[in-house]
Amino acid sequence: MNIDPTTLSGRDAYDLMVSCVVPRPIGWVSTVDADGIPNLAPFSFFGGVSTDPMTVMLSVGRRKGSEKDTAANLLATREAVIHIPTRATESAMVKTAADAESHVDEFELAGLTALPSLKVRPPHVGEAAIAMEAVLRHHMEVGNTPVDLFLLEIVHLHLLDEILTDGKPDPTKMHVVGRLGGSDYCDSSTPHQIEWPG
Amino acid sequence: MNIDPTTLSGRDAYDLMVSCVVPRPIGWVSTVDADGIPNLAPFSFFGGVSTDPMTVMLSVGRRKGSEKDTAANLLATREAVIHIPTRATESAMVKTAADAESHVDEFELAGLTALPSLKVRPPHVGEAAIAMEAVLRHHMEVGNTPVDLFLLEIVHLHLLDEILTDGKPDPTKMHVVGRLGGSDYCDSSTPHQIEWPG
Repeated sequence: MNIDPTTLSGRDAYDLMVSCVVPRPIGWVSTVDADGIPNLAPFSFFGGVSTDPMTVMLSVGRRKGSEKDTAANLLATREAVIHIPTRATESAMVKTAADAESHVDEFELAGLTALPSLKVRPPHVGEAAIAMEAVLRHHMEVGNTPVDLFLLEIVHLHLLDEILTDGKPDPTKMHVVGRLGGSDYCDSSTPHQIEWPG
Repeated sequence: MNIDPTTLSGRDAYDLMVSCVVPRPIGWVSTVDADGIPNLAPFSFFGGVSTDPMTVMLSVGRRKGSEKDTAANLLATREAVIHIPTRATESAMVKTAADAESHVDEFELAGLTALPSLKVRPPHVGEAAIAMEAVLRHHMEVGNTPVDLFLLEIVHLHLLDEILTDGKPDPTKMHVVGRLGGSDYCDSSTPHQIEWPG
């Protein structure tokens, strides 16, 4: 099948793209507004950019043209904690994806423990396997229906001891969850190796 | 465990980050140089950015400070085809990851069929489940050991009929492969759904 994406409606373009760029890591992002009110929400237009310094990208769509709380908070306070959801936290993660008013504390809504972070103001999720404290380094608008694209530098990591092997997250212990198209998610607990040539 | 990433060596920072930001989609990227010589190489610092227009990001590390072929070609010719590897093409994909000289044609090296593309000069992989023709829209350098970060607009998609359900890639038919830490890969053929609240 051949598709010219300019012939698709906005909804169809979205549905097609999230089915093609797979599997996507989920950045489950904690921020605070200027008054310190916390927000927590998941995004899958998220990924690694560089390791010196450790930098990730996060793209936040807009809701009816307005910045979502995560984007508004990042622009106001320039700090975040990015968590990686796993089978143990996926139910709580989707609860924080709901359209909530700005004053709603998603930590409370989802029954999560908000722990103080070390180097940034937003709290981190105590139950999360991986929590990466981050500072905003770059922001740009992208596209006709603009999204807010952020580059964030990781300044501190919290890793749950039970997911580690030799000090690094082990997919067989971590049960990490990735996003596919529609409402499908993958569980990456049973990795395979590919034989490299030579 | 608590980690301050500034205390890590470059190698350890890389190993930790690729174990934390998981699972990563793989952008298997075809480009041509100014003389039309094709190049094909996989990258997992890759992801979705926006859908209007369909835009992805690709981060290409440098080899001993020099741009890799993919980055040099993108800067010279501003076009690419981004494929999504699956179990059927993963062995060929890793063959194209090897350090090859600029004049080596990785299509030939990996025994892949180079088909002419419709809107861009780089050929696409005939065996690939998904091939997305793309045009460079933005480039920036990021980091102390700089990487080349590209934003690419998808201008045409080729999808193999046998991976589709209702016109969209179906993970149970596609057998898409994602990157984890080290040499681990995940197979996202058995998705699950998460119950959404309300």
